[in-house]
Amino acid sequence: MSAELQARLLGELESLVLVDPHTHIDPHAAASETLADVMGYHYYTELAHSAGLPKDRIEEPGLDPKEKVGRLVEQLGDIDNTVQFSWLLEMSRELFGFDDDRITTDNWETLYDAAAAKMAQPDWEQQVLEQTGLEQVYLTNDFDDPLEGFDTNRYVPCLRTDDLVFHLGKAETRERLAKATGVSPDSATDLRDAIGKLFSHFKGKGARACAISLPPDFEPAPVTNTAANAALHDVLEGDPSDESSRTVSRFVFWTLAEYCVEHALPFDLMIGVNRRVYEDGVFQGQDLYDKRTSLIQYRRLFNAFPTVTFPVSVLAETSNQELVSYAWIFPNVVCNGHWWYSNVPVYIERDLRGRLQAVPRTKVVGYYSDMYKLEFALPKFAMFRRILARVLATDFVRDQGWSEERAVALGKQVLRGNVESIFGPPA
Amino acid sequence: MSAELQARLLGELESLVLVDPHTHIDPHAAASETLADVMGYHYYTELAHSAGLPKDRIEEPGLDPKEKVGRLVEQLGDIDNTVQFSWLLEMSRELFGFDDDRITTDNWETLYDAAAAKMAQPDWEQQVLEQTGLEQVYLTNDFDDPLEGFDTNRYVPCLRTDDLVFHLGKAETRERLAKATGVSPDSATDLRDAIGKLFSHFKGKGARACAISLPPDFEPAPVTNTAANAALHDVLEGDPSDESSRTVSRFVFWTLAEYCVEHALPFDLMIGVNRRVYEDGVFQGQDLYDKRTSLIQYRRLFNAFPTVTFPVSVLAETSNQELVSYAWIFPNVVCNGHWWYSNVPVYIERDLRGRLQAVPRTKVVGYYSDMYKLEFALPKFAMFRRILARVLATDFVRDQGWSEERAVALGKQVLRGNVESIFGPPA
Amino acid sequence: MSAELQARLLGELESLVLVDPHTHIDPHAAASETLADVMGYHYYTELAHSAGLPKDRIEEPGLDPKEKVGRLVEQLGDIDNTVQFSWLLEMSRELFGFDDDRITTDNWETLYDAAAAKMAQPDWEQQVLEQTGLEQVYLTNDFDDPLEGFDTNRYVPCLRTDDLVFHLGKAETRERLAKATGVSPDSATDLRDAIGKLFSHFKGKGARACAISLPPDFEPAPVTNTAANAALHDVLEGDPSDESSRTVSRFVFWTLAEYCVEHALPFDLMIGVNRRVYEDGVFQGQDLYDKRTSLIQYRRLFNAFPTVTFPVSVLAETSNQELVSYAWIFPNVVCNGHWWYSNVPVYIERDLRGRLQAVPRTKVVGYYSDMYKLEFALPKFAMFRRILARVLATDFVRDQGWSEERAVALGKQVLRGNVESIFGPPA
Repeated sequence: MSAELQARLLGELESLVLVDPHTHIDPHAAASETLADVMGYHYYTELAHSAGLPKDRIEEPGLDPKEKVGRLVEQLGDIDNTVQFSWLLEMSRELFGFDDDRITTDNWETLYDAAAAKMAQPDWEQQVLEQTGLEQVYLTNDFDDPLEGFDTNRYVPCLRTDDLVFHLGKAETRERLAKATGVSPDSATDLRDAIGKLFSHFKGKGARACAISLPPDFEPAPVTNTAANAALHDVLEGDPSDESSRTVSRFVFWTLAEYCVEHALPFDLMIGVNRRVYEDGVFQGQDLYDKRTSLIQYRRLFNAFPTVTFPVSVLAETSNQELVSYAWIFPNVVCNGHWWYSNVPVYIERDLRGRLQAVPRTKVVGYYSDMYKLEFALPKFAMFRRILARVLATDFVRDQGWSEERAVALGKQVLRGNVESIFGPPA
Repeated sequence: MSAELQARLLGELESLVLVDPHTHIDPHAAASETLADVMGYHYYTELAHSAGLPKDRIEEPGLDPKEKVGRLVEQLGDIDNTVQFSWLLEMSRELFGFDDDRITTDNWETLYDAAAAKMAQPDWEQQVLEQTGLEQVYLTNDFDDPLEGFDTNRYVPCLRTDDLVFHLGKAETRERLAKATGVSPDSATDLRDAIGKLFSHFKGKGARACAISLPPDFEPAPVTNTAANAALHDVLEGDPSDESSRTVSRFVFWTLAEYCVEHALPFDLMIGVNRRVYEDGVFQGQDLYDKRTSLIQYRRLFNAFPTVTFPVSVLAETSNQELVSYAWIFPNVVCNGHWWYSNVPVYIERDLRGRLQAVPRTKVVGYYSDMYKLEFALPKFAMFRRILARVLATDFVRDQGWSEERAVALGKQVLRGNVESIFGPPA
Repeated sequence: MSAELQARLLGELESLVLVDPHTHIDPHAAASETLADVMGYHYYTELAHSAGLPKDRIEEPGLDPKEKVGRLVEQLGDIDNTVQFSWLLEMSRELFGFDDDRITTDNWETLYDAAAAKMAQPDWEQQVLEQTGLEQVYLTNDFDDPLEGFDTNRYVPCLRTDDLVFHLGKAETRERLAKATGVSPDSATDLRDAIGKLFSHFKGKGARACAISLPPDFEPAPVTNTAANAALHDVLEGDPSDESSRTVSRFVFWTLAEYCVEHALPFDLMIGVNRRVYEDGVFQGQDLYDKRTSLIQYRRLFNAFPTVTFPVSVLAETSNQELVSYAWIFPNVVCNGHWWYSNVPVYIERDLRGRLQAVPRTKVVGYYSDMYKLEFALPKFAMFRRILARVLATDFVRDQGWSEERAVALGKQVLRGNVESIFGPPA
């Protein structure tokens, strides 16, 4: 299989304008102001910390952004093998005009200043979107986000529901919910009503999905109002039993799925993360997982809500074949991107091959960036496109005898077409 | 590693006449009568349904075969990326003279009619066997199959035991057993006697294996007669406890292994399937799995029956390394084919590489088709042979410096030689 | 990616003198005396047994070494596809001047005699080390090993602690401990003191690590002295509850970690083995595993001992991505080699790619031989280097555009540099 073939396929894929169906972008500050916004991304702080940089050097209160970058750069030599570093380098070369192949204590200030100059341009955000070829960016909004002051067609709201499902025991969550909806969640009925108001609000603002990240042991199940009330009572009292907490989580989760029916919203499930495993880790660098999880835990959910589409992301690559199989069987299960610890080329390539070989082509959402700042879409999608081009070249053109046109069409469907058909086209 | 080398190895492998050691062929209707027999295979109905075709469009009572195919064809464009579709296309080109590279609403009727004409020829079954290069086809027979009216050397009986192990609680199963053996399974002793009669019957008809598919949580263990009688009593009463059901399952399973000793039969274990996970799925398109299973659950079995050969199939690719390791250590554990959700090139290739790199070459049964209709052997074995040729080329000729002759010999042993040495040669 | 590139990278890697950071070498008899020492290695006895050679043919009391080799050779034809066999062949060609490509009943005696002649040379051990390019070999010493009579800079002591953690219920273990330390482990305090004496002894002899292999279900946790005393009492009485045994295991394990802090020793964790699964297996050919294990079980340990480096080996390849992720997040978790059932090319390559793509380059210990006799280092490291060269060529030179020099530097760091930085440089 020739490198030329792959390059031709890649060239065609690169011409496609993208929609990014899952990010953590703040639409009020989508692009970076300095390189510290880029390198403050947990991928760099956690890797630098893992390689030996003390947490208090990274998270010192009042630390100047440039000083922070300088400290991180000292550790970059130890992580320059990682794909995460490669994103930083490719971004620096493509967006900031950097032309070295390493970022060192000798050259980082030049890079920092070049980036700062670019970022200070008033149309920087627009430049990044254009250079990246990015038309639409999906957000992950707190449930009490007013969703105002930004273009919701460019930055598409999605309702993030982790706090509702897993942190209703915190007074702060309940207060935020009461404030956002005017309903105090004191009973199952109130809670259901409050959640209904959130959906109406989000839907009214053009939301395209409900989304949640879930721990490995979560198993959705319906809960009766009676059981929900009893458990909620226990939770509101403080110091609830594990069983009560689980019951409330299940009740809220199931209620979300019911509203997804009513509002015709896909429900993004991001399955498998344990929070705060490394207790002294840097910000957002504490979460890990237990690979002993199975999609069988979702059988009741998938059966109960045939009209809800579930774009599923799995954290561990050992879950990918289950995802392939469940998407092959359940009409409402869709494969969604390559998440976090599986967003590494060796796993992406194999996971993608499984999906493209055995799941209907309409049911594979190729990639999302998961980014916090716009500058990351370029290198992350570039990485994915190169892998996609390779898989199309080997598994379809070489092994199935497909024409290049046909392979490119599959690639474009996976990269963008399915995002539109599953979440809706740009307005 | 050159494409030419692979092609040469493949050519040699293609010259080998095959024995297919696991299928669901009905020997009284081995070949298809229309394309509906082919496309009614659950791989197509379930994928079409997964891609959006309503179940009642597929399973409408009294649906005309041609109309059914027409409806499925409308969905084929959404699944033409899958390896399952590639089997249909390769079969159509090789067996039915189809010369397009897609099956569409425009050309399917031509294909349907061409297939029907071929299938109407009186020697079609023989033609398929010859064109496929297939000498012998193992069956999966219900325990009460009379095994009469067909050539048991061509279509080799195997005793399927799922109903006995897992559905003895159903009156229908017990009645079938009583009818087949003249023994009503009212006690452990009776049950054992009845099973013994089944073995004698099957062995007398040339059966080559006892076979069963097993759920992920099954763990074989010996059961005393006393415990078996108590549990059986509970089961016969109706509405048994889970514990009683499990005890009966274990008792029957262990008894099967004991008869495998007596009758010198291999015991095919197909490990890991959960039945009816997708409750509204199409026929045979409802089963999935829980990857959290381990061969450690079979330690007592493998230790207790050193003279029984256990050809093991695993459903999840995450179980393959365990299978490699257990076959490397236990003399009576053999790697068997690439089953169902793992019968996808990306998984086959990696699973096969693990087996050929670390398991004695005498203990790898390369492939079985699992087919319901004869026409599927051709494209399925063709897919496997191409992967086998690639693995031989890379891992043995390139990496180990083997001669091509030696690599081909290994390939032939895996494709056919081991089937004969493990299950017995054709008569 | 050209074969020439790979060959150039490999050539550079081959120039590196090695340190082997985990072996089972007996420093008083490091090299083999006959080919029976090589082929008595469990890889050959267990594979030959798995392929059909009865255990009593291999382990017959008083069996002459040459006769034993002759019996094993009769089975070699059935395992000549395995990577384990390839080590024997490469060793025979490189070290013993064998120039055939198979070992058969016709040529084995010539090989046996040639090997015996080489091994009889007084400087054979030195020859093997030099030809292998091996400078330092880490041992795995019983806790009561006097560590005398050998050069501890060449053969570096490591404290193996399996017996202390899992077999303190055996009187023999306690007697060995009392004899080695002068302290009878009758209470938690005594036990702690005794272990402290072992650490002092080992550290005084230049030990570089504490090491242990662990079953899949082990979960370290701190234990109070009171709980430890109660459990220890139960264990010393004989026939302890599972809970008491587990508590003692946890207490001893946690105490080891505490002494690793005090003595600044890395703690090698080899996670995932079940002992004696195949009860009638040959010597050392009885152990297997349950892949249902997770590094989440070690969260308390990794959090509690931030100053202890934990080089972690996982037995199942399904655990590798967890290892990658935990090493990416926890500063004190390091990826260590490719262990046992994962020491097979198809698993090594993929596991290595995950590590090099997502773990800081300072935290990957590339390989150890796990050998019992010195002659194995040559073929095992050769296998690993070839895979490493391929990964460097594809993932770094081809995909990241790295220079060859840079790729080689990464390879050398992984092969040797990190061994020195983590365990300490040769004296």
